[in-house]
Amino acid sequence: MMNTLPDNILTPAILLPEWLKEIEQAYLGKQMPGDETKMLFAIELARENVKHQTGGPFGAAIFNIRTDELVAVGVNSVVPANQSWAHAEMTAFSHAQARLGTYDLKGCLLATSCEPCAMCFGATPWSGVEKLIYGAEGDAARKVGFDEGDKVADWQNALEKRGICVVGPLLKEKANEPFELYRSMSGIVY
Amino acid sequence: MMNTLPDNILTPAILLPEWLKEIEQAYLGKQMPGDETKMLFAIELARENVKHQTGGPFGAAIFNIRTDELVAVGVNSVVPANQSWAHAEMTAFSHAQARLGTYDLKGCLLATSCEPCAMCFGATPWSGVEKLIYGAEGDAARKVGFDEGDKVADWQNALEKRGICVVGPLLKEKANEPFELYRSMSGIVY
Repeated sequence: MMNTLPDNILTPAILLPEWLKEIEQAYLGKQMPGDETKMLFAIELARENVKHQTGGPFGAAIFNIRTDELVAVGVNSVVPANQSWAHAEMTAFSHAQARLGTYDLKGCLLATSCEPCAMCFGATPWSGVEKLIYGAEGDAARKVGFDEGDKVADWQNALEKRGICVVGPLLKEKANEPFELYRSMSGIVY
Repeated sequence: MMNTLPDNILTPAILLPEWLKEIEQAYLGKQMPGDETKMLFAIELARENVKHQTGGPFGAAIFNIRTDELVAVGVNSVVPANQSWAHAEMTAFSHAQARLGTYDLKGCLLATSCEPCAMCFGATPWSGVEKLIYGAEGDAARKVGFDEGDKVADWQNALEKRGICVVGPLLKEKANEPFELYRSMSGIVY
């Protein structure tokens, strides 16, 4: 069974949920100094994504390292978009690259509410970001049924060797809240 | 410097190059029995992508395992699309999922002209495909300057353990041709 797909499209656009559009418009270009402030923002996106039932309990954001300005947001959109690659980190990379008009996010930082899975780990060096901060550990995601995939054991070190600074886990308890909310709302684990 | 990006878009659509639209229209739903036939098709996409200068020397395709029918194509589109995640395997997954209207490609096979990089390896279980066949080895990509990333050493086995059948390297010499063409045309290695 094949759906109709416009014949000029390789990969479809993923729409920004209405609530996220409002948050982005309010915070875009705003300065958020410090890793904890940035992390709280990413965790907030994860929680709002669960609350609005627009995807899994994961949020991410891209910031300019030098100015601390918000460049782009991202949320897990796998189920509503029917796109298995649409994890929060991936949509944040894609959104930032579309906004900046480049495939290279040099000078940028990724804040993600949870440790990256195997795919998002692999995607991080290709994105060009120079720093990655994460909240919850992979175990917290596994506990609510999300598979983190097969990563090299020393994944933080592998990124550091590529010149990407890694900070985390950060605000771990706070970062677990979206998972707890997700479980209490009994979300679909894909 | 921020470009204007439509305020309702999280991730942008990636357009199908004109030459690829023609190939897809000619082969969509056609049966291609056997792994080698499928691999030759993926290699052909890689070579055409170089020839038309629409991206890196990588091609991929999704087939229905039971019927051998072509479901979707994919090519590396990183530079033209300004999207670092747009590797051939990823665009093939995304294209197939958009066409079938599901994030789960169960019953499908991924044919990729080259061993998957760390990101595409991580993305494979999330895509739902049940079989992966690859042509060239990662070394061939490294020789023309493409970084394959940090994967677990026994990546084929890691996929097999998840129930994904892995076959490759397949038609290695033929699969190296897109890299040679790319080098001779001195493409941009990002």
